[in-house]
Amino acid sequence: NIDLLYSDLTVDLYNLYKKSSYLAIDTEAMGLIHGRDRLCLVQICNEFKRTSCIKIELNTSSSPHLKKLLEDEKITKIFHYARFDVAALKCNLEINTKNIFCTKIASKLARTYTNKHGLKDLINELLGIELDKSSQSSDWGSNEDLTKDQLDYAANDVRYLIEAMHKLKVILEREDRYELAQKCFETVSVHADLDILKFSNIFEH
Amino acid sequence: NIDLLYSDLTVDLYNLYKKSSYLAIDTEAMGLIHGRDRLCLVQICNEFKRTSCIKIELNTSSSPHLKKLLEDEKITKIFHYARFDVAALKCNLEINTKNIFCTKIASKLARTYTNKHGLKDLINELLGIELDKSSQSSDWGSNEDLTKDQLDYAANDVRYLIEAMHKLKVILEREDRYELAQKCFETVSVHADLDILKFSNIFEH
Ligand SMILES: Nc1ncnc2c1ncn2[C@@H]1O[C@H](COP(=O)(O)O)[C@@H](OP(=O)(O)O)[C@H]1O
Ligand SMILES: Nc1ncnc2c1ncn2[C@@H]1O[C@H](COP(=O)(O)O)[C@@H](OP(=O)(O)O)[C@H]1O
Repeated sequence: NIDLLYSDLTVDLYNLYKKSSYLAIDTEAMGLIHGRDRLCLVQICNEFKRTSCIKIELNTSSSPHLKKLLEDEKITKIFHYARFDVAALKCNLEINTKNIFCTKIASKLARTYTNKHGLKDLINELLGIELDKSSQSSDWGSNEDLTKDQLDYAANDVRYLIEAMHKLKVILEREDRYELAQKCFETVSVHADLDILKFSNIFEH
Repeated sequence: NIDLLYSDLTVDLYNLYKKSSYLAIDTEAMGLIHGRDRLCLVQICNEFKRTSCIKIELNTSSSPHLKKLLEDEKITKIFHYARFDVAALKCNLEINTKNIFCTKIASKLARTYTNKHGLKDLINELLGIELDKSSQSSDWGSNEDLTKDQLDYAANDVRYLIEAMHKLKVILEREDRYELAQKCFETVSVHADLDILKFSNIFEH
């Protein structure tokens, strides 16, 4: 039971999701280069496990309901490596995502005992769940219907993020790093803007 | 005519500087490693070219007048590579610098036609002035009085920063990057906090 939508949320789903406190979000694109590789899929999941996949059709340049949801300051948006998805959403759909929690940044600040901060390792350690990443590279831009495997894979990437966030928050608070984490999350949109403009090493010596 | 002070500004100099709109600031330390290498000198210069060098004596852990000045939101603090100085001021003197302009970040965003963003190259191109960097590595922690050469070198590093800032602002505004630059400046204190705690690559994949 995963909703499959085309290019935007329906108004009913928008009205449902806007009552959430948390939204886990992930995106799939044709590749990792902003501007070259178009956005193909946006997956969202709220704290009641409602899960929707929005296929972004060729030449779509806005998703008004999705935009209103992601720009809503009251809903925390949870991403794993938000920098990439926030940039993709901005340069493909002109969405300026607000109120970001990044589980990859949180993991680096909290789990200093490891260098394994990939989603699979994170979910495995924090929640004891094995994610199947075998569909990670696939043609998300295909005109054909997504396969059941692709949809399951895509939904899996958002399904556990809210629980992972709660576990990471506990560690960050215990180690007195939650405030620092929030300051880091606030810089994500600047990093995304710089990536879109192809600036690198702006903060390095 | 460079004021030389010990461990803090006098109240008279504080009262003078607090009326400035801009303060250029630089620091010299025993090295580049926060926590290991203590802060030895803080140089400041305002838009009327009043210039003071504050020698931070061994075991000094606060400079109340300097702190009030640097935490004053109304005065823009201009640094070249603010990330280093802001961290040094925070971990040595518990100063949380507010309202930062970094000429190195601004240079990277504005001067995309070069990769020479060192202070010497920047000042040379924008103002046609040759900085003498020959005293850059020296024992800033010495108990002896600073030599005239050392004082001149230290003051030189702040003397042209406000003019450089104005030139950089013109380019940033023309290229429609001034807002982006300001967002970058706002992230400097987060980078400084991460450096003090020895976190690296928090924002990278
Ligand atoms: N340089 C890079 N290398 C690998 N993945 C990158 C990347 N830049 C962005 N990403 C994104 O980061 C996610 C993987 O993160 P991690 O390696 O921490 O699990 C991928 O999302 P998907 O898994 O949705 O494809 C991928 O899109
Ligand atoms: N990794 C690094 N390498 C060189 N300089 C560094 C540095 N990290 C911080 N700095 C500081 O950056 C300043 C030089 O910047 P630039 O190379 O752009 O001119 C130096 O200040 P000082 O010149 O006051 O010693 C130095 O203290």
